[in-house]
Amino acid sequence: MTTPYAELMARSRDVALLSSCSSVLGWDQQTYMPKAGAAFRGEQLALLAKLTHQHATDPRIGELLAAAGSFPEDSLEAANIRELRHGFDRATKVPARLVEELARVTAAANEAWIEARAKSDFAFFKPHLEKIVALKREEAAAVGWKDHPYDALLDEYEPGATAGEITALFAELSAGLVPIIREITSSSTKPDRSILERDYPIDRQKLFAEAAAAAVGFDFAAGRLDTTTHPFCSGFGPGDCRITTRYNPRAFNEAFFGLLHEAGHGLYEQNLPADRYGEPTAQACSLGIHESQSRLWENLVGRSRPFWEHFFPRLQQTFTSIADVPLDAFHAAINEVKPSFIRVEADEATYNLHIVLRFEIEQALMSGDLPVAELPAAWNEKFRTLFDLTPPTDREGCLQDIHWSFGGIGYFPTYTLGNLYAAQLMRAARQAIPALDDRMRVGDFRPLREWLVANVHSQGRRYRAKELCRRVTGATLAVGPFLEELRGKFFRLYNVC
Amino acid sequence: MTTPYAELMARSRDVALLSSCSSVLGWDQQTYMPKAGAAFRGEQLALLAKLTHQHATDPRIGELLAAAGSFPEDSLEAANIRELRHGFDRATKVPARLVEELARVTAAANEAWIEARAKSDFAFFKPHLEKIVALKREEAAAVGWKDHPYDALLDEYEPGATAGEITALFAELSAGLVPIIREITSSSTKPDRSILERDYPIDRQKLFAEAAAAAVGFDFAAGRLDTTTHPFCSGFGPGDCRITTRYNPRAFNEAFFGLLHEAGHGLYEQNLPADRYGEPTAQACSLGIHESQSRLWENLVGRSRPFWEHFFPRLQQTFTSIADVPLDAFHAAINEVKPSFIRVEADEATYNLHIVLRFEIEQALMSGDLPVAELPAAWNEKFRTLFDLTPPTDREGCLQDIHWSFGGIGYFPTYTLGNLYAAQLMRAARQAIPALDDRMRVGDFRPLREWLVANVHSQGRRYRAKELCRRVTGATLAVGPFLEELRGKFFRLYNVC
Repeated sequence: MTTPYAELMARSRDVALLSSCSSVLGWDQQTYMPKAGAAFRGEQLALLAKLTHQHATDPRIGELLAAAGSFPEDSLEAANIRELRHGFDRATKVPARLVEELARVTAAANEAWIEARAKSDFAFFKPHLEKIVALKREEAAAVGWKDHPYDALLDEYEPGATAGEITALFAELSAGLVPIIREITSSSTKPDRSILERDYPIDRQKLFAEAAAAAVGFDFAAGRLDTTTHPFCSGFGPGDCRITTRYNPRAFNEAFFGLLHEAGHGLYEQNLPADRYGEPTAQACSLGIHESQSRLWENLVGRSRPFWEHFFPRLQQTFTSIADVPLDAFHAAINEVKPSFIRVEADEATYNLHIVLRFEIEQALMSGDLPVAELPAAWNEKFRTLFDLTPPTDREGCLQDIHWSFGGIGYFPTYTLGNLYAAQLMRAARQAIPALDDRMRVGDFRPLREWLVANVHSQGRRYRAKELCRRVTGATLAVGPFLEELRGKFFRLYNVC
Repeated sequence: MTTPYAELMARSRDVALLSSCSSVLGWDQQTYMPKAGAAFRGEQLALLAKLTHQHATDPRIGELLAAAGSFPEDSLEAANIRELRHGFDRATKVPARLVEELARVTAAANEAWIEARAKSDFAFFKPHLEKIVALKREEAAAVGWKDHPYDALLDEYEPGATAGEITALFAELSAGLVPIIREITSSSTKPDRSILERDYPIDRQKLFAEAAAAAVGFDFAAGRLDTTTHPFCSGFGPGDCRITTRYNPRAFNEAFFGLLHEAGHGLYEQNLPADRYGEPTAQACSLGIHESQSRLWENLVGRSRPFWEHFFPRLQQTFTSIADVPLDAFHAAINEVKPSFIRVEADEATYNLHIVLRFEIEQALMSGDLPVAELPAAWNEKFRTLFDLTPPTDREGCLQDIHWSFGGIGYFPTYTLGNLYAAQLMRAARQAIPALDDRMRVGDFRPLREWLVANVHSQGRRYRAKELCRRVTGATLAVGPFLEELRGKFFRLYNVC
């Protein structure tokens, strides 16, 4: 009675539902789980992961894919089949033994990384990372690749992207970025960062951040905000998306921009096609597109002058400690550009050099050109070239990020792709929405949000990221809009002519 | 390589783990889930329930049970096999179609019940309850029974108990209770209930309740307390048990005794054998035994004079509104006995008459002697006989409880079994622990808790409830200790000679 296509969609939905149960448990682990529950939670999550994998690789899916027949090229059905086939192929190519070994090795590696970072002792992490790199190379071989083993890993996070394309894009980006950063850092204009380190009582930060998230359109009837050590967004499914941030009473920007970032992810999740939940095309397009939504709201909106023309008077009413601060000084402070060691603390401009560095290192690890033992030296050398600084310890160098410890090689480039997509989308939005800045000046974010919902969120994964970009912006992804955005804002702020 | 027994234990563990994932999702639904997430949460829970049922009824379990061989009669292995076989038999006897239909019918019935209760309109709930009763009779027939179809349902909540035994026990209980209640209500001594309705700020109630829960031994490193509309306890697994309560600034007893009750359940969950998690014998013995733990801490400890000799000075420090209240007046107020319509608001003595009524009605529904259409009349008639009162509306009568709307026929008697087990266990504890009251007077609940852990909690389901009771108290469950406990406390408080 059911067609193969209908059964495929039902099975895809079950896989998504099962995986969403893990999301609930993961969220609880970060927010409310009592300390002593950690080991047991690990067992619950391991079982759910095993069942999800079993469901996603059920041979019946292969049979159904073969029997599904063909659909018109541009139809939703064809896109669903394309994505399901892609996911099924990948999942079934990786042997269960490798999946389990990766899970086991990364669980231990993550604990070792925490300790290694705390002690700034790379040697402690090294054997774990060696195992991970070896297993990821195995994974790449199992999945298959044409030009570079890295492509096989990248594909998990940014389907359809290749190391070759990104190399070209990042080369152009670095070439443009380095002189911009040089201009900024050699300017005699220096923002007064201490403005952000005055007294910002946490309860007021919370209220202010919630109000801002609601103002840009995060729906609190279908989501909530909690406090965690590391901010994140987890979209469970229709009607339920959780975002988190962390508060520091002497650092306004930490919680606020962290929250705007997560709210950007949250808006995407909240506006995916709910009526087709569980179909591949109703999921987020790629990590790069997901990140474009968070960066757009965090940086292109949240660090813009129009945004603060609306919010700054309210901010001053909320925090008496900045009653004497002029808007321009505040705007300059939240846009300070300063080369630094830690990626997650980096500003909008230098951030991308951190990614370029990781992208190069990851490729070298995967090709075998860089043995893990030489990672710290290679990191520091590249850091000197890009930033003209040497990390004092590995903790401020190659040990700073969690990603490799969980096997997330190929993930980093999506952060910068996100920045590039964001700028290109924002340019298209500006062309489509009359006087967008004026709307933001009066706190009206609806036109921008609705444009993003219509053009990006509601499209889900119907098109691959590259294709979505072409359809929405009329052009292939390029570095121009991003560099232009940086020049426009920072040259004004830093008095660069 | 693995023995059938080892594989059985591993499978039992997976079923428990899967079911514990549902518990996390259920807890989140009651505590933090945003409103709009309800429908999606229903889908997640339905899938988990389906998978749990599939795992629990996997034919491989039947093969393994047949191949497991035999173990010494009093061994843990034999007890595990006994319980697994019992659960598997029951689960496989009920056809999947019936399970699904019950899920579908009760989902609709629950919504209808909410509306019917709000409007006090039994006719609105009637067709749903008719379907439920018909399906539960089908279920009883599928499971099989000897003396009464009710036995088949009771067995799910109180394995090994029979309607016949409970009928005899409850007859004796009523015969003892009715004159006690008459003596109390005809006494000219009346407690001043208004003491409990003074000003009790919620934030202070919270701190006081948490401190009391910690004092009796609830481990907050392995659990937490949250606020929900209906208080509950959910033990996810080793190291993670969640309890909840609700606060009313003008009703001290609501939150406090609700919390002590849930903390009693929580202590049980926190002290089940963690190293054998997932084995049937590492689970709670029965609902009756579970309830005995909550009632023991709520009533036999929490409403005792020794408990308040320790806590009352602290209570007066916390709530200035009762600075003028003598301990005796407070103790009398929290022990007010007064026949009333609503079970969940009933006192320690009259509570059990509410259960006797429901037990009789449920049996008549199951045997077919009472058509659903005649339920309101039958309820009110029985209520008059037992309480000498007539419910003014069905909302205060047969529509007050949620249980039937989710198919929970056979559940109610376990509440009173809990009261009886609690009193009998407490008597045994008093015999085993020297000067128990004196220990409580100085806030030392450790001897009682450790006795319960050793004799009840750590035993899990190794023995059936009846057998556990015999082993721990040296006697079959009887109504004597409970009636004696009531006479001892209430006759003193109400000046009955």
